[in-house]
Amino acid sequence: MKNDSFLSAISGPTLLVNEKIARENIAKMAQKARQYKLRFRPHFKTHQAAEIGEWFKEEGVEAITVSSLKMAHYFSEKGWKDISVAVPVNLRELHLVNELAAKISLHLFVDSSFVVAALQMWISNPIQVWIKIDCGYGRAGFHHENVEPIRQCLRQIIANPKTQFAGLACHSGQTYKAKNKSEILDIQNESLLRMGNVKQAIQDLSPNAEISIGDTPACSLSENFVGADEIRPGNFIFYDAMQVGIGSCQWSQVAVCMALPILSLYPERKEVLVYGGSVHFSSDFLLDEDETRNYGPVVYFIEGGWSEPIPGAKLGRISQEHGILTFEKEIPEYLRPGIVIGVLPIHSCLTAECMGKYMNLNGEIMERFRYSNLL
Amino acid sequence: MKNDSFLSAISGPTLLVNEKIARENIAKMAQKARQYKLRFRPHFKTHQAAEIGEWFKEEGVEAITVSSLKMAHYFSEKGWKDISVAVPVNLRELHLVNELAAKISLHLFVDSSFVVAALQMWISNPIQVWIKIDCGYGRAGFHHENVEPIRQCLRQIIANPKTQFAGLACHSGQTYKAKNKSEILDIQNESLLRMGNVKQAIQDLSPNAEISIGDTPACSLSENFVGADEIRPGNFIFYDAMQVGIGSCQWSQVAVCMALPILSLYPERKEVLVYGGSVHFSSDFLLDEDETRNYGPVVYFIEGGWSEPIPGAKLGRISQEHGILTFEKEIPEYLRPGIVIGVLPIHSCLTAECMGKYMNLNGEIMERFRYSNLL
Repeated sequence: MKNDSFLSAISGPTLLVNEKIARENIAKMAQKARQYKLRFRPHFKTHQAAEIGEWFKEEGVEAITVSSLKMAHYFSEKGWKDISVAVPVNLRELHLVNELAAKISLHLFVDSSFVVAALQMWISNPIQVWIKIDCGYGRAGFHHENVEPIRQCLRQIIANPKTQFAGLACHSGQTYKAKNKSEILDIQNESLLRMGNVKQAIQDLSPNAEISIGDTPACSLSENFVGADEIRPGNFIFYDAMQVGIGSCQWSQVAVCMALPILSLYPERKEVLVYGGSVHFSSDFLLDEDETRNYGPVVYFIEGGWSEPIPGAKLGRISQEHGILTFEKEIPEYLRPGIVIGVLPIHSCLTAECMGKYMNLNGEIMERFRYSNLL
Repeated sequence: MKNDSFLSAISGPTLLVNEKIARENIAKMAQKARQYKLRFRPHFKTHQAAEIGEWFKEEGVEAITVSSLKMAHYFSEKGWKDISVAVPVNLRELHLVNELAAKISLHLFVDSSFVVAALQMWISNPIQVWIKIDCGYGRAGFHHENVEPIRQCLRQIIANPKTQFAGLACHSGQTYKAKNKSEILDIQNESLLRMGNVKQAIQDLSPNAEISIGDTPACSLSENFVGADEIRPGNFIFYDAMQVGIGSCQWSQVAVCMALPILSLYPERKEVLVYGGSVHFSSDFLLDEDETRNYGPVVYFIEGGWSEPIPGAKLGRISQEHGILTFEKEIPEYLRPGIVIGVLPIHSCLTAECMGKYMNLNGEIMERFRYSNLL
């Protein structure tokens, strides 16, 4: 193992970002959007950092997606003028809606006539409204077959100039639970058909409704975007072990890595204690073939980055601030307390949220938005 | 449902703390420590807040436990003079060891002769050293049966006046996976026996080694503390749904509750969308009898706090910022978008870490330590 210079700056669990890989991930998705004539409105919930947002600007991105009004506020202050909040509107934050709609093109998602009525009563400036459709994920949205409530909501939106109808949006998050590429493609094809049917069912009310879709697995793997006007993937900027597992990307495309100090070695049980636990990673895991949990593959650091996963090694157990690396064979000889070792996150969005900051490979810190800094 | 006044201050997911319940939890554990003549050295990793630390001082607590050197630094700046860091020493933070040992009584845990040697080489001021024993949890520590390495480490500690031997410490975290009270009591009894045996095996080197134990389930339920000198429970200040599940406490003792705005209702699937997901709760869950996940029981707010869990209702699914409440029967009539509803955390330590702040029932914000604010 060769420790690279950035490692000397690390005293505790640190989330490293490889800018080169992240920029390649952005460029590839931007190119795909151009190829299919789609508006690329990346979801910034994964990275949430002003500086990383600039990397998207350099690829021509002007419109973004976020997952809360407070996050929209953060990015509006960083110069973004066209922001979509891809969660049904929170009526307890209408003060933020009013503040944002006064200065940017604010896009909101709705799936409730009650909420549309409340918006029309209390907002001061026009907003762009997307009707959220549930194409099978079962989280938010009008069910795609439930046409009458969709039409009623649309009529209500159209009736008031403060709420400008922007189109139909869905998020087929069930792709995250897919077992392979073929399942992901099936979900994408089905969602596009369902969105097309809804569009057809409202054609008399709105002849040219846009369709916005977006999940990293489908946007990474599918070549079918028939009928879509916009994509909103987010995770692809970093990817993670879960995305490798379902086939969205290769290990070489994972752009973030946790650097963890080794605290102790237990050769008799082929385990290593690291400083890094669920407060740093969150608690997501994959189930390995033997039904044991995998909280992340282990890598070592090399010149300019990190290696591919070490075969047979994983972060096998975590508690609040402790992590246990397990090795199928002997513990590698070069490991010692005080050395820093890498673990690739299972779910990079959550690990980045827990960590709250990044370090790049020059040892520089990048700040990001945090909900909890506001409350 | 009667919304109480503190709810008017809530616009997004908010972690409420009921000071009265938390103080009762502290008083009860302090009383138990007095009864069994144990030093009460509570673990502050659960709350991590200076203000809440004061509630312990009022119960006579002078010595505390933390889970990182950075957290020790935070509480040393809040006036705490006797702090135990209950994780094996991180050799990449020896600058903090030196800074802290110069001004407070600093207690460190070791389970490696390599680390003891490194400490003796680099520290400037004496520290208190606890040998960490693994009594069956399998996380950190010398295995309790592995006497020779323990004796060797102890000889090494005793040989240098910079490292003052404080005693033997264990954490039987396997109680968190216990299914009921009887299993917890068995684990406690077994750990005390094993610690007693280790003490016996080092008696010629250190005749009066102290024994420090500490986990919330055993400290809450057991009446056997034979041979122990100190307890280090942490979670008990707030408790949570997991602790109720294993029998450590009652619902009425849970001192924290997440307040979540309702975003949308889906009566056809008896589900409610709330603003609140894994970035706010972390991702811990319990498995219900029907094998479905339970991310937290649902409560409603009442005068001065919250109700007991609503039967048949739970936070059934979460993603990054979305939560889905599921109801066995119809959705309660009083629910509407914009109303705030409560969910009790599965694991309060992690939810408090994610949230990073508290609100008390007067609507006032309490700050806390956050690792991620430093890095």
